[in-house]
Amino acid sequence: MTMQLDQASGVFVIAPTAFHADGGIDMASNDRLTDFFVESGCTGITVLGQMGEAPKLDHAEGVGIASRVIRRAGIPVVVGVSAPGYAAMRALARDVMEAGAAGVMIAPPSALRTDDQIASYYRGAAEAIGADVPFVIQDYPLTFSVQMTPGVIRRIVAENSSCAMLKHEDWPGLEKITALRACERDGSMRRISILCGNGGLFLDFECERGADGAMTGYCFPDMLVELVRLSRAGQRDAAHDLFDAHLPLIRYEQQPGVGLAVRKYVLMRRGLLASDAQRKPGAGLSPQARTEVDYLLSRLARRDARAAPAAHGP
Amino acid sequence: MTMQLDQASGVFVIAPTAFHADGGIDMASNDRLTDFFVESGCTGITVLGQMGEAPKLDHAEGVGIASRVIRRAGIPVVVGVSAPGYAAMRALARDVMEAGAAGVMIAPPSALRTDDQIASYYRGAAEAIGADVPFVIQDYPLTFSVQMTPGVIRRIVAENSSCAMLKHEDWPGLEKITALRACERDGSMRRISILCGNGGLFLDFECERGADGAMTGYCFPDMLVELVRLSRAGQRDAAHDLFDAHLPLIRYEQQPGVGLAVRKYVLMRRGLLASDAQRKPGAGLSPQARTEVDYLLSRLARRDARAAPAAHGP
Amino acid sequence: MTMQLDQASGVFVIAPTAFHADGGIDMASNDRLTDFFVESGCTGITVLGQMGEAPKLDHAEGVGIASRVIRRAGIPVVVGVSAPGYAAMRALARDVMEAGAAGVMIAPPSALRTDDQIASYYRGAAEAIGADVPFVIQDYPLTFSVQMTPGVIRRIVAENSSCAMLKHEDWPGLEKITALRACERDGSMRRISILCGNGGLFLDFECERGADGAMTGYCFPDMLVELVRLSRAGQRDAAHDLFDAHLPLIRYEQQPGVGLAVRKYVLMRRGLLASDAQRKPGAGLSPQARTEVDYLLSRLARRDARAAPAAHGP
Amino acid sequence: MTMQLDQASGVFVIAPTAFHADGGIDMASNDRLTDFFVESGCTGITVLGQMGEAPKLDHAEGVGIASRVIRRAGIPVVVGVSAPGYAAMRALARDVMEAGAAGVMIAPPSALRTDDQIASYYRGAAEAIGADVPFVIQDYPLTFSVQMTPGVIRRIVAENSSCAMLKHEDWPGLEKITALRACERDGSMRRISILCGNGGLFLDFECERGADGAMTGYCFPDMLVELVRLSRAGQRDAAHDLFDAHLPLIRYEQQPGVGLAVRKYVLMRRGLLASDAQRKPGAGLSPQARTEVDYLLSRLARRDARAAPAAHGP
Repeated sequence: MTMQLDQASGVFVIAPTAFHADGGIDMASNDRLTDFFVESGCTGITVLGQMGEAPKLDHAEGVGIASRVIRRAGIPVVVGVSAPGYAAMRALARDVMEAGAAGVMIAPPSALRTDDQIASYYRGAAEAIGADVPFVIQDYPLTFSVQMTPGVIRRIVAENSSCAMLKHEDWPGLEKITALRACERDGSMRRISILCGNGGLFLDFECERGADGAMTGYCFPDMLVELVRLSRAGQRDAAHDLFDAHLPLIRYEQQPGVGLAVRKYVLMRRGLLASDAQRKPGAGLSPQARTEVDYLLSRLARRDARAAPAAHGP
Repeated sequence: MTMQLDQASGVFVIAPTAFHADGGIDMASNDRLTDFFVESGCTGITVLGQMGEAPKLDHAEGVGIASRVIRRAGIPVVVGVSAPGYAAMRALARDVMEAGAAGVMIAPPSALRTDDQIASYYRGAAEAIGADVPFVIQDYPLTFSVQMTPGVIRRIVAENSSCAMLKHEDWPGLEKITALRACERDGSMRRISILCGNGGLFLDFECERGADGAMTGYCFPDMLVELVRLSRAGQRDAAHDLFDAHLPLIRYEQQPGVGLAVRKYVLMRRGLLASDAQRKPGAGLSPQARTEVDYLLSRLARRDARAAPAAHGP
Repeated sequence: MTMQLDQASGVFVIAPTAFHADGGIDMASNDRLTDFFVESGCTGITVLGQMGEAPKLDHAEGVGIASRVIRRAGIPVVVGVSAPGYAAMRALARDVMEAGAAGVMIAPPSALRTDDQIASYYRGAAEAIGADVPFVIQDYPLTFSVQMTPGVIRRIVAENSSCAMLKHEDWPGLEKITALRACERDGSMRRISILCGNGGLFLDFECERGADGAMTGYCFPDMLVELVRLSRAGQRDAAHDLFDAHLPLIRYEQQPGVGLAVRKYVLMRRGLLASDAQRKPGAGLSPQARTEVDYLLSRLARRDARAAPAAHGP
Repeated sequence: MTMQLDQASGVFVIAPTAFHADGGIDMASNDRLTDFFVESGCTGITVLGQMGEAPKLDHAEGVGIASRVIRRAGIPVVVGVSAPGYAAMRALARDVMEAGAAGVMIAPPSALRTDDQIASYYRGAAEAIGADVPFVIQDYPLTFSVQMTPGVIRRIVAENSSCAMLKHEDWPGLEKITALRACERDGSMRRISILCGNGGLFLDFECERGADGAMTGYCFPDMLVELVRLSRAGQRDAAHDLFDAHLPLIRYEQQPGVGLAVRKYVLMRRGLLASDAQRKPGAGLSPQARTEVDYLLSRLARRDARAAPAAHGP
């Protein structure tokens, strides 16, 4: 899969990992998801992210899942390789790049504080995985407690030619997109792709600020594809109408801790996952939460056919 | 103002503090806000909270603002008295209770970690302010980094007869409301009022889970009053329709850091504040952010007359 | 008291605040301490620091204590004015500067992360207290969770002409002293005074690295004075001999949480405090801990006459 | 190696991992270290801890090192298996237990806050690695930001029959040892072994409080063995004399970040490591720091023959 990650746009969907109720990997569901993502118009897939339950997979499992998705998808696949140390990161990066990954994603360890520490960490990571491996910065302070200014991101981009993309999920983050795009325009930073996470909670405006699209796993990635398309086509009101219809569920899904349970439950209801099971430790949905999601889906169905019951079922 | 805070319901609006562009306190705007809150049907007002820019006020200013609101409002006023130490907390609590406050609100210092530390802190605080002063627990882990389980809250309630209310803004938090109400039903916790914060982002479901209402400062507190009323009247769909119309703006306002700027900007546009100025340090809105809020307001106006331009202007 | 804080050297002792067992301020003991510090050869006194239990004092109490020490001491007094917001900081700074303080000390709020945030915070603080008020940066990541690189400190010094001193208690911190002194030598930073905290745990080497002395409250400030003198006189072995004799107790006193209890207990045993009481909340010493301190003192007495029982008693 | 970890005492030395300057594993030095630890009288060895640079090793390297130490040492070996998720933890635990490890050590992820979260994490970990695998709780809030009360530790011990030992490095921590031993005496907790870390900085008193010994990697583990022996034999003054002689170096080595560099440098000077290299990322010692350590060693040599130059060289 040859592609320049720094030119990427559209939706790189964060793939969940499908498990059976006993914790075993459900490859049939994973395959079905992969096919669905491609059919939905996603331009890429990101596997082994936080929401892919990567820390619950051992090395062999992770490589196995990534390789299978890469072979099946036929679109660029980014693989999360964040690890407590460079050795495990390098081992995983090497294995998945050999399997055909388009690049890897690296989140900063939560102990990093100063600008220098952050820049130094990424220099070390880029060297560890190899200077020819395109990488994505994951900028997610809410979860990782590491705050990167536009200046630090510019510095990482300048110091590492293999830095190709920013997974932007700072919060708040709209001004950061504007600032980074300004850096590109004034020549102080080369172009990188900016795809936005945060469960899509600000994707309506992020696209307008200059993001190239989304990298998130909201349970209607097909809607994300359409939203990015509308926004880039300049159909502002239509984009917001679509976004607003989904916002009650986007908001519900974006709760830390239970968000993945919501996502898997909806994907199960949509017939894409056989089970919404998570590997331990995982926060399940209470019966009351399920009825709340059901209610949100029934309301959504009146505004977006993607959520209609007829659309369900494998 | 005699009222039992532990029986409170409806909306205790978090009052912003109005400033002139030079940082001086704008008492005319503060008065106008107070009147608006009462006319909107708020059942209480909370002053000197985080969103009231309390840390930017010195002691005399804080007492002055609180006293003025108390005299003018005629509804219960809760005053934030969180402080780095018990001495400043006690001094402020004593002064505002003398001025007629209904109670005080106390957030935990961010260094607290263990259940014992949290319980001990609230015992000390209750003793410091006086056992006859009703207090509200502010449970806001996103900002304060302190996580209180239902068990710890039950313990604080049991150990302090003056604990009257929970300002609930855990995230995620729906299950916590359900858990606390279950404690009340099974007799393991006496009743307290639960009012929800978090900018209202989950208020639709929080009411259904058993919350008594809201304690937040979303820029349409009049909508919050209506939402709580609809929800308590069992008009579920109507409540969600109203909520969903506001959600794009609620979501935008709830961004950390810039949320207050959004709130003040809308309150200014609604003719309630003469200026959206914050005391330093404060994050202002970029021109682009203002146009985004304008756009959200214009979309909202089509679904809720409260946001119609005709509704603006003092 | 006219003096240039940026030229300060020797020992600025962190003064504890003496309380009676009932929490009232014990002015007689505070006076006795002040006299002792002056007689011991301290070149300055710092009041209202963390170890002065500043957060447990209300504004009036703080100003009262600071003013009294200033009047009595006749040596420069630095006053801690750290506060959750600039308003309280300014109010306290103004009052103590009027009372004759030599400068104020400002710790960063624990939420600061990026270099820009830290620099911005100090610019705002310097403006809030007034550009003519000399201030001390308190650089104590272990307690405040804020990490300042030499580059950030250089930036604060460059941006604020009133920045006069660094209370250095980074950990580890020896290389930072070396780096800052190199900045001064190569002309990239004007000279400031560097006084070291951390309970004195590294003072032996800090002096050799270029620190101007100590700003800490170890229970034998008279020893600190002698240590700094020996070190500056080039008597390396003698300095380390003295330091090593005290290290078992320095180490014991430097424990977070109970350190102040140890300090006050020894000052009481030395006849300088009438009571080792802390205001609530405060961690007391267990009976076993007291016997451990007694044992350390008895061992110390064999190596340093300052700790001899004959030296005790008011 | 059959032994009951919950009965362990003496010194379980934290083994550093020896690397060549190019980052390759130096097995000859690792073997030499293993032999030295056994000859020094250590009762156990802990490998793959933080100070063993475990996060810089990939799975195969970690298993390789652990297996080799286990085969060579002939004394119980505990293996650090802390990981971002249970899958990697289980994989490593299974491999090293098959290789003959006496047990594994598990540190809590830094996101844990409440008592319930901590207890739940250890239940999940114990289940993941298998209920027959003895494990050690690593209680090190300074590094992991997780605070465990004695009550939580008692709960972990009660809920997991395979919990055999506490690596105690809370700070301050003396009262915790006393509290846990009281729990054992009053029957509210079964006996576990308590070995202390923190670089040995409080080992003099920890032994007196009831600890069974040390689990740390101070560069003179032979001294630690003697210290524990003296303390358990009731030779209090002799124990403190020995400890105090080493304290200046213990203190210097215990600095976060550079501590391992000090440790490896001394082990190299003692002829045990061929190189003091760390794998990247690693903080090296500046030339000035090396001369400081040299100076401390020369001073130590006058009080303890273990540090005499004649003792150096392989």
